[in-house]
This record gives sequence, C-alpha cells and structure tokens, in this order.
Amino acid sequence: MMKSILTVCRVAAAALGLLCALVSSVYAQPTTDPLPSWNDGPAKQAIISFVKEVTDKSGAKYVEPEDRIATFDQDGTLWVEHPLYTQAEFALDRVHELAPQHPEWKQQEPFKAVLANDREAMAKFSESDWEVVLAATHAGMTTETFVEIVKQWMATAKDPRFQRLHTELVYQPMLEVMDYLRTSGFKTYIVTGGGQEFVRPYSRRVYGIPPEQVVGSSILTRYEYRDGKPVLLREPKVFFIDNNAGKAIGINLFIGKRPYAAFGNSTGDQQMEEWTAAGKGARLMMLVLHDDATREYAYGPAEGLPDTKVGTFTQALYDEAKTRGWNVISMKRDWKHFFAFEK
Amino acid sequence: MMKSILTVCRVAAAALGLLCALVSSVYAQPTTDPLPSWNDGPAKQAIISFVKEVTDKSGAKYVEPEDRIATFDQDGTLWVEHPLYTQAEFALDRVHELAPQHPEWKQQEPFKAVLANDREAMAKFSESDWEVVLAATHAGMTTETFVEIVKQWMATAKDPRFQRLHTELVYQPMLEVMDYLRTSGFKTYIVTGGGQEFVRPYSRRVYGIPPEQVVGSSILTRYEYRDGKPVLLREPKVFFIDNNAGKAIGINLFIGKRPYAAFGNSTGDQQMEEWTAAGKGARLMMLVLHDDATREYAYGPAEGLPDTKVGTFTQALYDEAKTRGWNVISMKRDWKHFFAFEK
Repeated sequence: MMKSILTVCRVAAAALGLLCALVSSVYAQPTTDPLPSWNDGPAKQAIISFVKEVTDKSGAKYVEPEDRIATFDQDGTLWVEHPLYTQAEFALDRVHELAPQHPEWKQQEPFKAVLANDREAMAKFSESDWEVVLAATHAGMTTETFVEIVKQWMATAKDPRFQRLHTELVYQPMLEVMDYLRTSGFKTYIVTGGGQEFVRPYSRRVYGIPPEQVVGSSILTRYEYRDGKPVLLREPKVFFIDNNAGKAIGINLFIGKRPYAAFGNSTGDQQMEEWTAAGKGARLMMLVLHDDATREYAYGPAEGLPDTKVGTFTQALYDEAKTRGWNVISMKRDWKHFFAFEK
Repeated sequence: MMKSILTVCRVAAAALGLLCALVSSVYAQPTTDPLPSWNDGPAKQAIISFVKEVTDKSGAKYVEPEDRIATFDQDGTLWVEHPLYTQAEFALDRVHELAPQHPEWKQQEPFKAVLANDREAMAKFSESDWEVVLAATHAGMTTETFVEIVKQWMATAKDPRFQRLHTELVYQPMLEVMDYLRTSGFKTYIVTGGGQEFVRPYSRRVYGIPPEQVVGSSILTRYEYRDGKPVLLREPKVFFIDNNAGKAIGINLFIGKRPYAAFGNSTGDQQMEEWTAAGKGARLMMLVLHDDATREYAYGPAEGLPDTKVGTFTQALYDEAKTRGWNVISMKRDWKHFFAFEK
C-alpha cells in the first residue's frame, strides 16, 4: 500500500517537473551571456560556437561528456606572468628567507645576485642558474611542509605593479571560460610548465580545479619514515618538465585522453595546441596574446611586440596559429575586464 | 507574467518532490545489501562501518566528498594474477606474434625460452629478463597503436585455467565495493604496478573507472611528427615504476590527495597502505589474502600458504596488518562468489 502511494506521489512529482521543463523551454528567454567580460568578436564567438557544436546531441560533432576535456596553461594564460613568473618570485623570496642559514650564499652565484636584488643579473640567469635556485628553495622538505610554505606565501606575497595577491591577478575572462566549459560538461585541467605541487594548494579555491586536475612539472620525491610515519621527501632533482613537448606527453600521462579545447599563450604551449588540434571532430585551440601594456603587459615578439623572454610568443607560433585556424585572443581587443577587482 | 507562472510551477514541483522524499524516508525499508557477494564478517563490517563514518555529516569522522579518494591495486586485488600477471601473458603472446620479424630470437634468451614455451625457464626470469621482454613488446609504436593492440588482445586472449577472457576474471566482491564507494561519493582509482597504458583501454568498461583515474607504471614517450601530425612514440625505457614506495609516490604525483581507503593484496601494496593509514581520521586499509585453492588460488607465503613469487604476501606484511589494525580479507571465508559468471 505504502509503495503504491509512493509510486503515485513520485509519478505526480515527475509529471509536474516535466510540465515545468516544457513551459520553461517554450517561454525561455535567451540565456544570460556566459562570457560577460569578453567583447563580441571572433574569439568569443569561437568559444561559444565550439561549445554549441560539441554539446548538440543531434549534431555530427557531438562529444560524450566523459570525453570533454579542456586544458589550460597557467602562467600568462590564467594569471599574470610578468615581470617574472610567480613561482620565480616565490623562489627568490625563499632565497632571502633561507639566507641566514646559508652565509656562503653572499659570495656565491646565483644566490649573490638574488640577495643583492640585482634584477639585471637575474634577468640574465641561465636555465641552470634557475635550477640551482629551485633546488635550494623547493627541495629538502616533505611534501606536506612544502604545501604549507606555498599556502603561507600565497596568502601574503604581493605583485610589485598591481600590489595585489597573485591569486587576485587571475584573468576574469578565463575564469568565465572555465565555468562555461564546466557548466557544459567539461572537465577542466591546468597543464602548466610550473610546479605541480606549487599550483595544487590553491587550484580549487582560485580556479575551481581540484588538485588531481593539475598537471605540471615535478621533482623527485623519496618515501621514508620519520618517527615511524611515512613521509615523501622532496629531492633536488627534476622528475618531469611539463613544457613544450612535455605538455603533450604530460596530458597523455596524467589524463590519458586528448583535449577538445586547449588554452595557452606562449611557445611552451605549441605542442599542447598541436596535440589537441590533431584529434578528430571539433577542437578549440586558443592562444592569448599579451598586447595591452596599459591594462597589463605587451610582449611577443610576435606582431612586433617586445621580446621579454618571459612567456615568449614567437612570430612562428603566431603564423602556425593563423595557418591552422587556431584562435589568437587579443587581450586588448577581446577582453572588457582583466581582473575581478576592476569591476 | 511568464516568469511568475514558471516560479509557481517550480515551487509546486519542488514541494511535491519534498513531500515524496518525506513519505519515502518515513516508510523506507532497510536498504538492500550493498555487498551481496560478501559473507557477513569483520571484513564486510569494516567496509560498511567506514562508509557510514565518513559520510555521516554529524559525526566527528565526516569527510568532504571532494576528499573521498579510494585506491585499488589491480593484479590479485581486482582480478586474477595467477599463474602469471595478465600483462606478462600479453607480453609473451606478443613475443610469439612478433617472432617472424625477429628470427634471431630463436637463439637468444629470454626470447628463446618464451618461444619454446619453457614455463620452467620463464618462472626463473630475472627482472632484467622481463625488462627485455617488455621493451621488445611494449615499445616502438605510437601510444594509439599500443591501445589498439591491447584492446584486440583483451577481446580474445583467455585465461588458461578458467578459459575466460581476463576481463571476466575480475572479482565480483571488489566490483561491489567500488560501486558502493562511488555511490557514497568516493572517487575510485586504480593504482597498479602494471602498465598505466595497458589498463586504461578497458578500465571504464570493466571497473567503471575512467582512464584519468588509472595510475600505473609507464615508459618514456617521445613527441614527434609523422606526415605532419604529432604522435607519441613509446620508447623502450622505463619512466616510472608504480610499485612499493612508488605507489605512495604515484598517488601523490597523480592524485595529490591522500586516500581514505586503499585495497591491495601483496608486498607491492605495503607503502600504499602505510601512506593511507598515516592520514588523520577514519582510514580503511584492506589486504586480500588468496587462501582458496579450490575456487581460485592459495599463495602467501603468509600464514603458511605456498610462496609462488607472483603477488607475494609476506608474513611480515601480514603481521604489520594485524599490528596496525588493517583488515585482511580471506577470500575463502569472506567471499560468497568470486566472479560474475558463477552466479
């Protein structure tokens, strides 16, 4: 008896729900703009058309929800990377903080230049200089301790120009794209040349992306026991570089699926875009061009913009994008707002 | 006007829905057993109590859904690993298939023993013998080609004793546990010493686990262009071994969260269990003991079971489990059914 009452009750609720859906679909107004911080133009249009195509069940380019993967570079694509990558700023701050325990650094490059705040010398640091700095500042502690250090730094360190926390310097238009894609059934990933364990502590809070959806560079860790409890010790040795070809390799290694949409901004993202483009069906390849020195920065050297060596976007990449029909986002032309705090 | 009709409509539907839920909760019968293939006993009880604890919002051991991670070893935990790991069977079949292209193998160990079907010699293969076999059979093709080879083999190759496809030899009780955990808000992962790209092609179909939730061992891949299109070429060089300490390292690397539940069966799972156990709050550590030679196999050498060298469960691990309060699943005592086809 109870069961039949329940059944009637459920059927009635379901019918009313269906009726509502019907009324709602007949009288629905155009939905609100999913990308309000974007100016109308080809970039915004490309994103919206792509989403419509892959979510249209009756269309030829429909993609099953389980295959809807979108990848985002971080530095210069999701947040400001000038004048120096945020993680490099973090490393430099750590050198200052650790200096009292390393009196020898005062006489020893590359630490000497860092401690003297010699920006000119630092701008000329080679890759191996940076590796020395990273090894000294990112290793020698457990993974748990490192996460705590990152969290504390992120909560206080400010960008020199905007005088804002780095996590406030994320691009509002890109947050909207990530939300829009997720609402459309996509799983969003960060695929960064930066440190995986550097990004994970704030990825959910800042981007709505959980740690397991952050793919990045990493150093070796060693399993050992401290007071009978296991820890993972960060070692001063590179394990994986998630940049250039490493981005395609990392996507295959960590996700095992080819993205349908990929957002980057520099030469380090070339292979991620190529790997995405090589898939069948509708694919969305986007590259952010920093061409607004007033509201943020302008650098290339593509299209005659200054070559700053940080987040390099070469003319060759620009030409590849144009030839292959990828979309270049002009920050100056395509973005109404840059940051949430501007609104 | 339309908007207010819609609102009324929705409120009415929601109210009726709520009423149904209320009627339903008042008159609800005890829910059906989530683990029907398990006999009542401490192992089944441990799983059910754990799930109740971590999902009880008012309890001290409640775990947010985003943190509910459960990891499962594959070989010997989710499916049969005797007389030889499935992936080893695959490698041996590949040697036979590739032999016509390698006439020199007839005189060259370890291939000679494989081609002669000399099981005694193969049982004595060293790790470096297996590495030679794996390099010859798992590398030298693109990732896409490898996936196709695995899929074809999985669709036809049969287990020598049960005369079933390997994917039919998954343990029904473990499928139930995975379903039960997922229904309870858990994200389930495979964490296998086997090849990540070997397991991913069938993980969703067989276990309901998508490729991105398969963590395993891997070889190097190289990004290159073929006819202008990028491919990832599998190289005969180990990149990561996801076994022993590698399981804790792999979990941190690929997931970046500590599991709340971990299921294993051999010494290779020791560190995964330890890493899980070292977290705060309720944690569920489970080890499957193969002690039923009639329905499957019996091996240890823990508890005086035969030492077969495949899926070794040492007495030291057994003692660690008992000392630390981990749960040992006796397949003989705890499992009503082993495989879906038995029912």
